[in-house]
Amino acid sequence: MANGKAVTAAVIIIGNEVLSGRTVDANLPFLATALNELGVRVREARIIPDDEAVIAATVNACRHAFDYVLTTGGIGPTHDDITAASIARAFEVPIECNAQALQALKQHYQPGELNEARRKMAGIPAGATLIDNPVSKAPGFQIGNVFVLPGVPAIMRAMFDGIRDRLSGGAPVLSHAIAAYATEGAIASGLAQIQARHPDVDIGSYPFVRAGRFGVSLVARTPDRGVLARVAEEIKALLRSLGETPIEDEEI
Amino acid sequence: MANGKAVTAAVIIIGNEVLSGRTVDANLPFLATALNELGVRVREARIIPDDEAVIAATVNACRHAFDYVLTTGGIGPTHDDITAASIARAFEVPIECNAQALQALKQHYQPGELNEARRKMAGIPAGATLIDNPVSKAPGFQIGNVFVLPGVPAIMRAMFDGIRDRLSGGAPVLSHAIAAYATEGAIASGLAQIQARHPDVDIGSYPFVRAGRFGVSLVARTPDRGVLARVAEEIKALLRSLGETPIEDEEI
Repeated sequence: MANGKAVTAAVIIIGNEVLSGRTVDANLPFLATALNELGVRVREARIIPDDEAVIAATVNACRHAFDYVLTTGGIGPTHDDITAASIARAFEVPIECNAQALQALKQHYQPGELNEARRKMAGIPAGATLIDNPVSKAPGFQIGNVFVLPGVPAIMRAMFDGIRDRLSGGAPVLSHAIAAYATEGAIASGLAQIQARHPDVDIGSYPFVRAGRFGVSLVARTPDRGVLARVAEEIKALLRSLGETPIEDEEI
Repeated sequence: MANGKAVTAAVIIIGNEVLSGRTVDANLPFLATALNELGVRVREARIIPDDEAVIAATVNACRHAFDYVLTTGGIGPTHDDITAASIARAFEVPIECNAQALQALKQHYQPGELNEARRKMAGIPAGATLIDNPVSKAPGFQIGNVFVLPGVPAIMRAMFDGIRDRLSGGAPVLSHAIAAYATEGAIASGLAQIQARHPDVDIGSYPFVRAGRFGVSLVARTPDRGVLARVAEEIKALLRSLGETPIEDEEI
């Protein structure tokens, strides 16, 4: 698809618990949707283990390839929270105790509660700026084009609200989905012709099985509202020409 | 963690619909769990767009870095199903019409239904072996250490059953999870000491919020059942020493 000027992002999900299958990640769907609303398109996501060398290498690969990188996970006080250290390694900077972060933690905890493990959460790579944590105070941070967020979805979402104005994107991609109880094979040729007429529109075909019936959801995506409506009409006309009933699946 | 001999895998989820946030991937949790049961550890997952160059580069990066690579998505009959072509490009081999695959499709479809789009599904990279599709007949394939599966979860799972005996792993990782309504900061120091005593065990700390209460799930993972039981007892003793009640979260 021709989107030379699109603003792009990669999402890096850090956590052994997702790779073990124990935890189903909920952060990518949220971030993909929220970033698209800001005109930033998630082009790749990587799920990686709690391993400093892997985190550093992945962050370095992604920050050079995409406009923005967002990471989730690994910024708490326990021994397996190694994201800050790993990103300091990626940027070849030291970890420093951030005075502002320490102050926020001091205000949050009762006297005597701010132990060594909790103080670790004020350790931020040199040169980073903080991302405010309105829920539990331990901050995230931004360094270069990399935004470091926690893994707990409720806290991650609250902190994402605080960085919306640091992310400047292009036009959001609009999508229009039309479903039918048709088979992909029957519509493939006509759908390919619609795609060929509209090379700048991303047209996807997603088969599904619902209550034992095979169907397909056809999703057109483009920032151009007028073109989107035309493509949707062409898809509906194609389905009707094949004797199928188009169903408005959703409109975003 | 010291796992020099672990058998490893990467999972590559191919599909714009996951990166747009529209579809929540269900294949990684299944594959991560199923592969671990076979003694194969998923070390990385990547979610990438329907883009031939990106798919080929990602497959090449992963197939050299891990023992196995499993891909999902993009093997249907529509224009956006480009996984076979992309993997042929990665391996620098042509796509060939596979006689066995074509035969399966001919038996599945009524006379006249096997149109050009559906015939495309018999196009397999030269040198690949088929993965049987008991649901809708369009096969996946294996080439080298790369296993190519569909994106529709029900079909993917049925086809995974057919490749279990092609995947030879080591000992499955066992896990034991203990939860408590404690804060990570309070247990971090003691937990780090348990981790230091058992460097070959992967101990993860995962905070959660349930019904407005903060808690933490502590998960130990190792192939050694005896060591796992010891570490679990040490974690429970740590929690009790801090005045917390350990809760058996699950035992896999």
